[in-house]
Amino acid sequence: MSTSTQPSGDGPVTLINVFEVAVDQAETFLEQWRKRAEWMSTQPGFRDAVMHRALSSETRFQFVNVSHWDSAEAHRQAIAQPEFQAEVRAVAHDPRQRVAANPALYQAVAQLEPSS
Amino acid sequence: MSTSTQPSGDGPVTLINVFEVAVDQAETFLEQWRKRAEWMSTQPGFRDAVMHRALSSETRFQFVNVSHWDSAEAHRQAIAQPEFQAEVRAVAHDPRQRVAANPALYQAVAQLEPSS
Repeated sequence: MSTSTQPSGDGPVTLINVFEVAVDQAETFLEQWRKRAEWMSTQPGFRDAVMHRALSSETRFQFVNVSHWDSAEAHRQAIAQPEFQAEVRAVAHDPRQRVAANPALYQAVAQLEPSS
Repeated sequence: MSTSTQPSGDGPVTLINVFEVAVDQAETFLEQWRKRAEWMSTQPGFRDAVMHRALSSETRFQFVNVSHWDSAEAHRQAIAQPEFQAEVRAVAHDPRQRVAANPALYQAVAQLEPSS
């Protein structure tokens, strides 16, 4: 197993959450995500979040959240808050919603600018 | 079907490519991706690309590329180039590589900054 570029987790991290959401539930999902994200944005270590929506309704992952945090530890503390846990449970147990979330922490390992 | 916030596709777009890659192939994959990305960065309309790698080797999607383009059309023209198509075929037909790519175009539909 080669892990020479596996990131260490020290320093700033990127939270990427890849969502599978039924197209007819997209509006409700986005509204509820925004509520959670607004709360997240009050937490220590939060830098920014951008929610992306697919141009095509055929795309497998309709929504992708890319969010930056000061550290993995700051993010861990935020999602451990009872307030956030309650929100997540509410979504998970809502029979009207079929949402699969794939959240994970990442670090940038390559960056490119335009070249000629 | 509610599509009121489905992005229109006009203007700048974000290409997000979510990769499933065997952990023991991560280095080779990253090296080859970088070669393709360097070529991409010479194409008209390319703005930037950041490749993210998961902090944990247990993460389902080990790599996520987030790349910005001037327009969906500029991106379409870049990936239609024979040079790029040949690269993609080479990876797809390489029996040593087991890579599942999920590329799609997105637009930002929500953006948050820190608040208190």
